[in-house]
Amino acid sequence: MDGQAKVISFEPTCLPMEMTIEAAREPLIVRALRGDVVERTPVWLMRQAGRYLPEYRAIRAEHSFMETCRTPELAAEVTLQPIRRFGVDAAIIFSDILLVIDAMGAEVTFSDRGPAVGRPIRTAGDVRKLGRVEPERDLPYVAEAIRATVASLPEGVPLIGFAGAPFTLLTYLMEGKGERAVSAARAFLMREPDLADELLGLLADAVTVHLVAQVEAGARVVQLFDSWAGSLQPGLWERFAARYSRRVFEGLRHLSVPTIYFVRCAADHLLHLTEAGADAYSVGWLCDLSWARSVLGEGIPIQGNLDPAVLLTRPELIRDEVDRVIAAGGCRGHIFNLGHGVLPQTDPEMVRVLVEAVRESSSRIC
Amino acid sequence: MDGQAKVISFEPTCLPMEMTIEAAREPLIVRALRGDVVERTPVWLMRQAGRYLPEYRAIRAEHSFMETCRTPELAAEVTLQPIRRFGVDAAIIFSDILLVIDAMGAEVTFSDRGPAVGRPIRTAGDVRKLGRVEPERDLPYVAEAIRATVASLPEGVPLIGFAGAPFTLLTYLMEGKGERAVSAARAFLMREPDLADELLGLLADAVTVHLVAQVEAGARVVQLFDSWAGSLQPGLWERFAARYSRRVFEGLRHLSVPTIYFVRCAADHLLHLTEAGADAYSVGWLCDLSWARSVLGEGIPIQGNLDPAVLLTRPELIRDEVDRVIAAGGCRGHIFNLGHGVLPQTDPEMVRVLVEAVRESSSRIC
Repeated sequence: MDGQAKVISFEPTCLPMEMTIEAAREPLIVRALRGDVVERTPVWLMRQAGRYLPEYRAIRAEHSFMETCRTPELAAEVTLQPIRRFGVDAAIIFSDILLVIDAMGAEVTFSDRGPAVGRPIRTAGDVRKLGRVEPERDLPYVAEAIRATVASLPEGVPLIGFAGAPFTLLTYLMEGKGERAVSAARAFLMREPDLADELLGLLADAVTVHLVAQVEAGARVVQLFDSWAGSLQPGLWERFAARYSRRVFEGLRHLSVPTIYFVRCAADHLLHLTEAGADAYSVGWLCDLSWARSVLGEGIPIQGNLDPAVLLTRPELIRDEVDRVIAAGGCRGHIFNLGHGVLPQTDPEMVRVLVEAVRESSSRIC
Repeated sequence: MDGQAKVISFEPTCLPMEMTIEAAREPLIVRALRGDVVERTPVWLMRQAGRYLPEYRAIRAEHSFMETCRTPELAAEVTLQPIRRFGVDAAIIFSDILLVIDAMGAEVTFSDRGPAVGRPIRTAGDVRKLGRVEPERDLPYVAEAIRATVASLPEGVPLIGFAGAPFTLLTYLMEGKGERAVSAARAFLMREPDLADELLGLLADAVTVHLVAQVEAGARVVQLFDSWAGSLQPGLWERFAARYSRRVFEGLRHLSVPTIYFVRCAADHLLHLTEAGADAYSVGWLCDLSWARSVLGEGIPIQGNLDPAVLLTRPELIRDEVDRVIAAGGCRGHIFNLGHGVLPQTDPEMVRVLVEAVRESSSRIC
């Protein structure tokens, strides 16, 4: 491997701590997330396993979404599909951020119209009825799916575990859907901050044990999705979203796996983003990656941020946009990804073009 | 009036140009939009006429949305409702941003599930089938509603005319709805920039004549809504959203009415926002108004930006948040508004609390 060859060319006594032979054996994405100089920019895509792939649709034709999540062989198979097809640099376990709140008693169901929460939170009593999560008892299929996936992954391709961030899970626990749920969540934070703290504390605990179990089962990287945090004014974002995400990251520190915090690229949130306490930050396509980097600080690894709509265009446009993102992301501490998930109407061939373009572009530009 | 009294206390020969007796007779919001020192912060609310008001629901129980827009007496009545109830500092004509593209031949219909476009744009042929808008022929009811409203407005309360910005209208012309339409629009800009230019040019022309007609009928201020521009990466935002909004504002310059450009507070768009060429900018609640002001520049009037979800809480919280926004917005060149429209589930009494709080707070803080 390139990385190993580079290390071996040094005098062993001159190696800095992070460039030991052991570190060089780590997967490319793990080294990039630690800020090491790497041989090329690693790439994986949010929602790289999903409806745009015919082999995924073939499985979903026979199994519901929940059944696919809860059957380790199916979840592992779906997780591996984009690895086989595109050879991306990381797999992400096929699962859903709402399984945790379902395990807490929220009664989540999935249909064509999206997820629904059977027992939304309206009162303090509703919060206190939520159960604590014991991953081995409540979510055993996630760890099993991770073990099955890891056993089949090619060498050097790590598995990413993930969860929804506490604030984003809170929005799903509010009555209603979409904008109505998000405005209800914002009003709840302002109207009942103490109860919100109690609920977010419970969610942070549940998410932490869920992620610890994923790492113990074999996940080498962890990503926390805070998709709805972008709907908060800066004061509320710091007080409720960043604070409880930081609690989750602190609860993972002893595991020494790199952590990534995903947010859309909302306004001046970025000025304070590192308060969330992750190792790296994944940002939406709304901001220029060089601006994001200048705001976050040079030493902070950053992930992103191609607009998923670029994959609805043509190969030459995809290559141009990849060049732009690689140049803006810089050659150190950048993990290539989309700014949001792969769109269902995407042609899988365009994803192949993208992955090849990232390899070619990062070798050429860096 | 306070403003007039202040002017009269000066020696006439000492008055700067913008403080002539004539200027002092202008409505409070017009003076604030010109950056004048004013006696208190003006306030109006996006979607201040709407479903949260029982008197609006009473009208809508008997008339469809489209019928209400197209019947001047009904549109004027609905426009006046929040003026009578709250005494806000401006009215905004009751209408819809999609009436223009309906007049161009897009066949817009409204139902409980939102608007639908009967003839979406897929090809160059579709773009060329769009008609030019002649307001007197195609949208006569808007000018009539404006004249009827202006005749009934209290002295000192001006009427705001509005339209959708070209890029935001383009998203509605794409097939599909919500995220699917917006990602289709982004892909369209990248894939077919020449056709996008042609379409955005047609839309800018239609929007310009529509707004000119509104001003000629009596609108004293104009606001351009670019709600979907916040979904664009910075390069596309400048190339397609800002550019064609600027074309609209340039087409209004000879009218000497203050213009406002509304965007959500997306990422680093704000760094380049003034490229849109408006007189003032209305921003979403996602950014801190003092940050927005520092980025836009001291001399640029700014409108916003209370989170509409604050109105779902309690009077004392509303007052606290109003104080925060007034302090952040500063005492000159600030028009108080929400960061987005009034939510349908809002209690009208909380709107009254808000309007009174803005008056009290701006008198106390400024």
